Amino acid sequence: MTIQSVTVPGEFLDLLERPLIAHLATVRDDGAPQVNPMWFSWDGEYIRFTHTNFRRKYRNVTANPVVSLSIVDPANPYRYLEVRGVVERIDADPAGAFFVELAERYDAPFGATPPPDAAARVIFVVRPTATSAH
Amino acid sequence: MTIQSVTVPGEFLDLLERPLIAHLATVRDDGAPQVNPMWFSWDGEYIRFTHTNFRRKYRNVTANPVVSLSIVDPANPYRYLEVRGVVERIDADPAGAFFVELAERYDAPFGATPPPDAAARVIFVVRPTATSAH
Repeated sequence: MTIQSVTVPGEFLDLLERPLIAHLATVRDDGAPQVNPMWFSWDGEYIRFTHTNFRRKYRNVTANPVVSLSIVDPANPYRYLEVRGVVERIDADPAGAFFVELAERYDAPFGATPPPDAAARVIFVVRPTATSAH
Repeated sequence: MTIQSVTVPGEFLDLLERPLIAHLATVRDDGAPQVNPMWFSWDGEYIRFTHTNFRRKYRNVTANPVVSLSIVDPANPYRYLEVRGVVERIDADPAGAFFVELAERYDAPFGATPPPDAAARVIFVVRPTATSAH
């Protein structure tokens, strides 16, 4: 199946370009939703998240790759972007290089060095399939 | 079925007590998650959201009442609370009184008066069933 991408509305692109917190929703094996704050990056085509290959969210997206994320503008909580999408692939990140890239993007208070669980790090590569914004 | 409530960890209760934005995840009829920023209130037992009876999220929770919400501390985005729960009931709010209560709680920039869609307003009454926090 070819997944059709959508274009994110230009006036909301800054919410993906800035190092804001995305609330990523996934679906658990019992059908219940789960949602957690996450770092992300955006390259104009894909949204990427760092995660590990042994935690719940990894099991969720491996079994069901459909996700959604919500971002608000910290300066105006009534301005927001929701992106629904699909985890198109999960890349290995065994040296934690992408984690470090995000830690730099977010100016992480604990520094930008590979995490203790680097060997288990993976990258969720999400293709946007729908957006809603206000 | 009796739904068992959980106790929200005391050191994270402020995230429910303060007028912060919750990102509410629901599951759509095709099984995909949806997540949007929402006002809420907390009375020590239930989390309540204002919504309308004609939009997608209403259809989602009517068909599948299992939800999750994520809240971060604006002063520290690495401090967060996730509450999973069930929409135990949906109350009518035909005068928009609960909407006004939330508009006051959030000091809404557009004022605290009943919305144009007051007649269609409803209240999602969510019982927490699990939490995760950090």
